[in-house]
Amino acid sequence: MFVYCDNAATTPICRPALDAMLPWLENYGNASSMYKMAREAKTALEDAREAVAGCLNVPPETIYFTSGGTESINWAIKSGVLRHPGRKHIITSAIEHHAVQHTVQFLESQGYEAAYLPVDKHGFVSADDLRAAIRPDTALVSVMTANNEIGTVLDIALLSRAVKEIDNKILFHTDAVQAIGHIPVLITPDIDMLSLSAHKFGGPKGVGALYIRKGPALTPLLHGGGHERGRRSSTENIAGIVSMAAALDYATRNMTDSIEKCTALRDRLIRGILETIPYSHLTGAPGGGQSGKHRLPGNASFVFEAVEGESLVLGLDAKGVCVSSGSACSSASLDPSHVLLAIGLPHEIAHGSLRLTIADTHTEEEMDYVIESVRAVVERCRFISPLWDAKENCPTERFWDR
Amino acid sequence: MFVYCDNAATTPICRPALDAMLPWLENYGNASSMYKMAREAKTALEDAREAVAGCLNVPPETIYFTSGGTESINWAIKSGVLRHPGRKHIITSAIEHHAVQHTVQFLESQGYEAAYLPVDKHGFVSADDLRAAIRPDTALVSVMTANNEIGTVLDIALLSRAVKEIDNKILFHTDAVQAIGHIPVLITPDIDMLSLSAHKFGGPKGVGALYIRKGPALTPLLHGGGHERGRRSSTENIAGIVSMAAALDYATRNMTDSIEKCTALRDRLIRGILETIPYSHLTGAPGGGQSGKHRLPGNASFVFEAVEGESLVLGLDAKGVCVSSGSACSSASLDPSHVLLAIGLPHEIAHGSLRLTIADTHTEEEMDYVIESVRAVVERCRFISPLWDAKENCPTERFWDR
Repeated sequence: MFVYCDNAATTPICRPALDAMLPWLENYGNASSMYKMAREAKTALEDAREAVAGCLNVPPETIYFTSGGTESINWAIKSGVLRHPGRKHIITSAIEHHAVQHTVQFLESQGYEAAYLPVDKHGFVSADDLRAAIRPDTALVSVMTANNEIGTVLDIALLSRAVKEIDNKILFHTDAVQAIGHIPVLITPDIDMLSLSAHKFGGPKGVGALYIRKGPALTPLLHGGGHERGRRSSTENIAGIVSMAAALDYATRNMTDSIEKCTALRDRLIRGILETIPYSHLTGAPGGGQSGKHRLPGNASFVFEAVEGESLVLGLDAKGVCVSSGSACSSASLDPSHVLLAIGLPHEIAHGSLRLTIADTHTEEEMDYVIESVRAVVERCRFISPLWDAKENCPTERFWDR
Repeated sequence: MFVYCDNAATTPICRPALDAMLPWLENYGNASSMYKMAREAKTALEDAREAVAGCLNVPPETIYFTSGGTESINWAIKSGVLRHPGRKHIITSAIEHHAVQHTVQFLESQGYEAAYLPVDKHGFVSADDLRAAIRPDTALVSVMTANNEIGTVLDIALLSRAVKEIDNKILFHTDAVQAIGHIPVLITPDIDMLSLSAHKFGGPKGVGALYIRKGPALTPLLHGGGHERGRRSSTENIAGIVSMAAALDYATRNMTDSIEKCTALRDRLIRGILETIPYSHLTGAPGGGQSGKHRLPGNASFVFEAVEGESLVLGLDAKGVCVSSGSACSSASLDPSHVLLAIGLPHEIAHGSLRLTIADTHTEEEMDYVIESVRAVVERCRFISPLWDAKENCPTERFWDR
């Protein structure tokens, strides 16, 4: 059996996205030229913008196409802080994706100061902490809509409101890469910028978008020929953009069904793993019932005591189950995830993390196969692990069950 | 008849590039993950890097994949100037693509000073002018390999040598977007960075590369998950990258034949237009014979007195001939091209520009159709033009024939 459970890393391209893309690989008109073939490309580009905007319930002119989530995030943050040149303070959370975290760290090297808001054990940011962190020279706040590792869905409407109530000039950006196409995201007027990435919701890699609220002009990150109304230069990737729009449209139309199906499968997976594997813990917000709404429908993330996450990934690969330990980007690193440390896990437990991110195309049989595979791999890893032998003396379980 | 003569704006995707791409739209593994499907993607990525590097005769580890020429250029210039923080001077030419020109202008707004080297009437930069412009605080020089509007091929080896002889610490970048895949480009050790774009040589839009010579570490433009050995984050667009590599391989293997064929077609086009249309002038370096090597094989660019370029583009579109007036990016603008002004054309003549950029798939019959179409459209435009009636008093012809 082959079960791809790493949809937070990337998703298969969906049929509508592929069908929408292919004609635009053949029709090659440059959307900035003036002849008929080029005008057709320009029309397709603007139709795609309307479609994406429609899915997000925002005006088309607030959508700027980019090469992906990382570019959108870099643009939002690096150019956002230029808006009020006297302000040199940035607020973000301790559980952001590296695209946000490393961008903020780069700005720290350029003379900015940054505050990294703590999170509780489920990964929630407190509005009180956010309010307390705001300074007169705060330029920008960037807090993610949903976490990529533990699947926690934050209350961005509340957090952005808290910022604007104190200082309306502070720009609020949210990395919504894991949320868009998966859960409803309400883009309130308090949200100035929102990043998304096509390949996280059934679109192709290499394309994304940045929503920029009407009003705040944003210095380009990519200067040049003046594409995207002068804000983001580079010959438009029509095939990718049209495909992304089709994917988002498809995801949005199926969202209610998809959430219901994923949630049921996810909860089956969570229950199965916690029940069959000793010393296993769910990370992030609880699944099941109403409280499950604070967790991405497709995310089931765990830590297993006395196991290395890397061994789990490789062991499951041998069984045809594709998973990650933490985020895909940092899967080559041996450092424990900053997200798991931020929710309070000690290093030795954070190493034993496993992220399963499922899709609505999965079946109950597949979930049961995954549960049994995880159980078998964890057991084998523990069998050969000195950590497991020392388990009696392990202080981490007490820590986690605090 | 339909004749696409705007290959400098963008090229049709070639068969090998399309064939190489399609499997990677279906195989969606994230190259940063650890399981088998992801490792296959990673292997494809590194194979593509080797292929691109092989075509350029440089080591694979000097190639960084980006979202296109504009990103490569922005990265090279914006991060290049950070290398020696005390240096605040940039040298570029007066005929650079907007991706370079607007990036340098942005840096001027951030406290840098810039020198824009003049060019002669063919578009050549003088090494003496370059030497004279160098200052102790010069951080970076960016001069293009070949011009996108008038097709002039500059002597980058000579110019980069001139820079390094004076100050080895100055970084030399060249925008080779119009050259790579079309003419041999020798990447000498004096060239620190070189930008290229896939869709200019039969690859897809939305993907490009930056060559960075081994040695100079370059601050990322896109921070995040640490892809491309920590220099350029963003989930790798495997389909696009693999397709670009296939296109470059194909272009490189066919380059000798392609140059010969394009050159013959181009010279037929140039001769035909200059002979049949009065008050028409070739812009850029001469075609034909040895001197034709200073001109891109596929470029035939003109100005026609007493005509508006925009009218020509639309008139030719009605005849099925796709062309540009100046570069595609700025074709929506009514400002005359900065390139044509830099080679000494007065405003009123620069407005009457037409760029025909052909491919080796064209035929002599198509060229003859284009010649006759251009002649007919120019004649009709002049027939209704008050400029043409006033031609007797027009000072521009004397200027041009200086």
